Amino acid sequence: MWILGLFLSLTAALKPLKYSSLESYSDFCSEISTFEAEYDHFSTRNTQKIEIRVITDDRFYQAGGPVLFYTGNEGDVQLFCENTGFMRKAGKELNAKLVFMEHRYYGKSIPDDKNLYLSAEQALADYAEYLVHLKSSGVTGPVIAMGGSYGGMLAAYFRIKYPNLVAGAIAGSAPVKFLPGLFDCRGFYRVTTRTFTNTPSEHFCSDNIRKSWETIKLIGAHMVGKRTLSEVFRTCEPITDVEPLLDFLEDVWGTLAMMDYPYPTNFVGDVPGWPVNVACSHLDHDINQEELLEPLRDAASVYYNYTGDLACLDLGDEGGDLGYNNWYFQTCTEFVFPFCSDGKEDMFRVHTYDFPTYSTNCQQTFGTTPREHWAEMFFSVETMKTIGGIIFSNGLLDPWSSGGVLTQEEAGPRNYIFILSKGAHHLDLRADNPADPEEVTLARTEYISIMKNWIAESISKTASSSISDCSKKLLFSSKKVHGA
Amino acid sequence: MWILGLFLSLTAALKPLKYSSLESYSDFCSEISTFEAEYDHFSTRNTQKIEIRVITDDRFYQAGGPVLFYTGNEGDVQLFCENTGFMRKAGKELNAKLVFMEHRYYGKSIPDDKNLYLSAEQALADYAEYLVHLKSSGVTGPVIAMGGSYGGMLAAYFRIKYPNLVAGAIAGSAPVKFLPGLFDCRGFYRVTTRTFTNTPSEHFCSDNIRKSWETIKLIGAHMVGKRTLSEVFRTCEPITDVEPLLDFLEDVWGTLAMMDYPYPTNFVGDVPGWPVNVACSHLDHDINQEELLEPLRDAASVYYNYTGDLACLDLGDEGGDLGYNNWYFQTCTEFVFPFCSDGKEDMFRVHTYDFPTYSTNCQQTFGTTPREHWAEMFFSVETMKTIGGIIFSNGLLDPWSSGGVLTQEEAGPRNYIFILSKGAHHLDLRADNPADPEEVTLARTEYISIMKNWIAESISKTASSSISDCSKKLLFSSKKVHGA
Repeated sequence: MWILGLFLSLTAALKPLKYSSLESYSDFCSEISTFEAEYDHFSTRNTQKIEIRVITDDRFYQAGGPVLFYTGNEGDVQLFCENTGFMRKAGKELNAKLVFMEHRYYGKSIPDDKNLYLSAEQALADYAEYLVHLKSSGVTGPVIAMGGSYGGMLAAYFRIKYPNLVAGAIAGSAPVKFLPGLFDCRGFYRVTTRTFTNTPSEHFCSDNIRKSWETIKLIGAHMVGKRTLSEVFRTCEPITDVEPLLDFLEDVWGTLAMMDYPYPTNFVGDVPGWPVNVACSHLDHDINQEELLEPLRDAASVYYNYTGDLACLDLGDEGGDLGYNNWYFQTCTEFVFPFCSDGKEDMFRVHTYDFPTYSTNCQQTFGTTPREHWAEMFFSVETMKTIGGIIFSNGLLDPWSSGGVLTQEEAGPRNYIFILSKGAHHLDLRADNPADPEEVTLARTEYISIMKNWIAESISKTASSSISDCSKKLLFSSKKVHGA
Repeated sequence: MWILGLFLSLTAALKPLKYSSLESYSDFCSEISTFEAEYDHFSTRNTQKIEIRVITDDRFYQAGGPVLFYTGNEGDVQLFCENTGFMRKAGKELNAKLVFMEHRYYGKSIPDDKNLYLSAEQALADYAEYLVHLKSSGVTGPVIAMGGSYGGMLAAYFRIKYPNLVAGAIAGSAPVKFLPGLFDCRGFYRVTTRTFTNTPSEHFCSDNIRKSWETIKLIGAHMVGKRTLSEVFRTCEPITDVEPLLDFLEDVWGTLAMMDYPYPTNFVGDVPGWPVNVACSHLDHDINQEELLEPLRDAASVYYNYTGDLACLDLGDEGGDLGYNNWYFQTCTEFVFPFCSDGKEDMFRVHTYDFPTYSTNCQQTFGTTPREHWAEMFFSVETMKTIGGIIFSNGLLDPWSSGGVLTQEEAGPRNYIFILSKGAHHLDLRADNPADPEEVTLARTEYISIMKNWIAESISKTASSSISDCSKKLLFSSKKVHGA
């Protein structure tokens, strides 16, 4: 069984992401409790509760120390716990309590109500409620939020919506600008293409992939060709229509770019170190159409069958995972994620983005009408600029960096930006690894020093008063203030 | 018919407020349209709309100019329009578009659903949605929010929750700290007492009132006494229990202090200029218990029957007005407003605040369990400090000032505080009047100059980039970024 596309939501197919489901977890991701939050934080008549899972790790915590809070995203919180080793590195250094809170409607925190209250606003209120609970139980140190991908968006959102609870936030590979009108929708595919081109196989790799779409369509146009495709890709069911295969391959390339870590990982599928290089090594010269299929299959296998254990490729195997469907649902309610491509500056098929079509797809699939400009308004980058206290980090190998905050001008003077030239999707939030590029190691050190500042500021703010530079106190008198 | 208690919510009786219902409105408060907002902004399955009334006034507006936005509170928006003349003064000076938006579930913007989505969060999202709509229709100037009382709280909340939409906010007499644990719950009654003591009648006034509770109880303890009370206060129904009369009088004194404007007003009842002085003139010497009733009635009449038109006093006349009930509902859901008094430092009966009793009252009345610490968390004063751009103004005659931000330390360096020693409840937001104390006139001038700064800042922010002082850009390279 192959596992597809972390945090993906293509225009045409609107496909979201599938995380791995690990079979065993480390000790430090096993201390799980359940928190009862308001089921609907924003209705006055709500009396129901929702149960949200929380992982805590107190191994480094010293009383009065800070709290590092992972704002869980669209998957099982244990998986994020496993794959966010930086929390433990920082926790050790800061004597912090570590908390990973699951996002409602993901993992094992799922009510059976057709996603009625599945939204970032509700999830953030869950997090806030939990932190208030934590404070009331004596954990009063400053809180720093942290997350990767959608979790990184949530960390930034948490900071701007509850700066009273959150002293600072690390938004790892958070595409906070991946919204209609805020960025160039061709970005995702262009960065993917760049990542495939910037390998030892150079332009050959992306050129071959660009060529492959027509090749597959040509071959798949007749019965014999379809049989060939089925055989080459070892599909479980004979291919009757090439579209699912094309969609699948698009997702594979995007996901490989996201997962282009310098060492083997199993976050989203089992992949080797620098998987894009490995994939491209099969496509490193100009290959004729007739000979393209097998190298293409070998390249894609780096993602979906690197271990060689896959009996057959099931192109119909989508939607089995709840996180997958539910993120898809979120892109059909409050997070309109536009993707497009021109097939020239990128190696993909042509995709256009237009809201009416996007909306119709959502209507057909979920019966929802997405709110095109809600996220832009409610979780505004402008607000992040105003409030500050956010680290925006992006890796240039990562297609999602196209929707990230990449310049100091966008971030404003109160936030930090980190651009990791050799970084894939939130590599910086993973545990240290000997294969890490130096820039990533440096960034992690910097993060910790910034966090120390946030913590110190937060403590001094609580302890002392602020400097007043806007004082406009007028006459104050408490006796005989007015005449007849 | 008497009209009672703007923005009041006593612990014992939990009574909220009643605004006047004016019969005619000025031209500039008559341009009313209806805006369709999301019925529930925070559920994913909402398809319904809610109709919210909006008053616009374009007499001063010049294209590109700012928008002054009144965040409607718990009453008919036309009434707030009439009583917020400062909007017009500032609008004229700033060439601004004026908007007064009604708060959902008040005035004529009331769905029939038992207040299901009556909350500040939903109302703020209505305001935000409207502003986005306004921008899309070409009104792109900076927005400054403004409001008095709960409307002032909303103005501050609007700024902190949507700083991307709101460049600054004037929170007039906004008791943003009137929440459990954030202030001394004896404040409301103490300030009322101070206002009554600081009159030409000095301590006699408050001493007589302090004495009156026992007096009325003593007299009301027997049948003949009850008849006397009914006759003196000219109640519509014979008094059978003195409690409603005592509750009524407590509300009257509080409301008179709130309405202690230097000139006659009809915002909440018809009252003369400096009504507390007028009321106290009936209580300006040490009065024996036997002789107290009539002067007390005369003092209270300044509020409930100054015009002398009232045929009889209806002590059962409560709850006829929707705004009244609905604010009461809000104090039973998200705004827990604690009142207490000791009868020593204040002139009232002893009232205690405890949350369990408060909650039981809410449960019995509305079937709701109030969220004791929600407002403190979600609309945090700490957040206001962090974000800035807020003017907190408070009048020391106004009992609500006890829950206001009164020191620069509380406000933080990014906000402004104005303390008006002769100010009642948001006097500063009313139109200029020759009887205004000089401090109020000065404050209004200052507000406009601060607003000009906010507007200029907002425009320069949009136009140019920010100074970067947190730049942490690491290596950036878009070619050949990783090896094998």
